[in-house]
Parts: sequence; C-alpha cells; structure tokens
Amino acid sequence: MAFADALAWDDKGLIPAIAQEAATGDVLMVAWMNREALLQTALRGEAVYYSRSRQRLWHKGEESGHVQQVLDIRLDCDQDVLLLQVRQWGHTPGIACHTGRHSCFYSHLQGGQWQDRPDAPVLKAPAQIYGAS
Amino acid sequence: MAFADALAWDDKGLIPAIAQEAATGDVLMVAWMNREALLQTALRGEAVYYSRSRQRLWHKGEESGHVQQVLDIRLDCDQDVLLLQVRQWGHTPGIACHTGRHSCFYSHLQGGQWQDRPDAPVLKAPAQIYGAS
Repeated sequence: MAFADALAWDDKGLIPAIAQEAATGDVLMVAWMNREALLQTALRGEAVYYSRSRQRLWHKGEESGHVQQVLDIRLDCDQDVLLLQVRQWGHTPGIACHTGRHSCFYSHLQGGQWQDRPDAPVLKAPAQIYGAS
Repeated sequence: MAFADALAWDDKGLIPAIAQEAATGDVLMVAWMNREALLQTALRGEAVYYSRSRQRLWHKGEESGHVQQVLDIRLDCDQDVLLLQVRQWGHTPGIACHTGRHSCFYSHLQGGQWQDRPDAPVLKAPAQIYGAS
C-alpha cells in the first residue's frame, strides 16, 4: 500500500506508535508497528502492534479484552512516528497498561527519583485481567 | 544521576521523548534524548533534546524562540519512553513544528492517503520563524 511506503521505517522495519485517548487527550502507551501491523490497524479499525519481545503481531486486547478502537491515524512531519486517536474498550476508565493502570506513563520524576503518580492508580489487578479466562 | 540509570536507553544511548501540551493535552512532537539532554532538561526546566541529524544537544527554541517549559517528566512502564508535560512558548497558540504548525502530527490517513488535517494550519511561515534574527 502506497501510504505505508511513505513512512520512514527504522532499520528493523518498525515505527513507533503513540496511542492517545481521543476523548480525554491522555497518552496511554507507545508500542511499535511493522508494515503488516499498520495495514491491519487501518483495515480493522483496531490497534494491531508488533511485539518486539514476542516477535509477532499483537492485536491489543487479544488477552485482556482491552481493545483499542482506532478513530484516526496521524503522522508526524518526519514520517517516523504515528499517533493513534483511540477509544480504549473493556473497562471504564480505560486500561491500556499491563499493570492495570489507565496509562503506561504512571511514573514521574519527583525530587530526583521516579515515583508513581498519585493520580494514576491500578484500576484492576493484572491477575484479574489476564487470569480470568 | 541514579534516575537516568533507571532508563532503558537504546543501543545508541537514546530514548524517545513525547512533548504533550499540558493545558490542552495536544501531542506536539516526538524527539530523542541522550543522558545529557535528559539531565539538562531536568535541571533547566526546559526541553533539551539530542538532534540525531546534527549529532548534538538541541535546546528546543534556541533558533525559533519556541521554548518548551517542562512542567513534568513522565516515564512509561517499560522505562523506554518519556512523556514531557510542557508549556509551548513564543506564540499563541504554541508552535512546536518546524513547519510553523502547532503540532508535528498535522497529517492523517484519509481515504488510503496521508492528507493534511484541516484543523492543523500553518500558524507562522517558517521563513518568519527562522529568518528573523
């Protein structure tokens, strides 16, 4: 597909993709896509990433049920980062992080140390998310 | 600094940093930091990136005046992406992109093609931004 050719894929054939919750503007997570992941995301309207650790496509929510509906796929001026506008399904508020939190960015620099943000609690225990089926 | 040791720097000693406008939630841009850039950002309270093309530290706004005041530095669960909460100075609304737009993510996938978003206009001509001094 021509639109995939326009991207500045890195030397591993990947591009980072930021998932941002459309309704709130919250940045939920960053994952990677290869060409196939991007095409599937565009076709399905749900986020499909490429898992570098598992070295395979990863339909976000395939285990947790926390699927990301993709409302818009944006691209930056260098064509090397994607920004997905998503609706995070499966829980209210949405859970994007494998720790059971809304966002993966639950830590911040405070007094020279990384500390958990008080406004970023665990919404559901990971054992409940991944052990239920 | 211990907080820098906690990060999962890539094989080039870099980490991607997303700049998000704190007041609006808009994702403005993604750039890279090395260890020195992160330390300077934390110390100055203004975004300092590492320019991969120029291979040097880049104090955002050093030419354009479009400095990013950093209100919070967040980190994701894999310790491999930073999320800056910023106030974008030098123009209202803020201009983060070298094209003179608010955000670098001014393009989106529409009808199988990357098209400029109608709600992401050029706010100031690049020649005016970079040619004035």
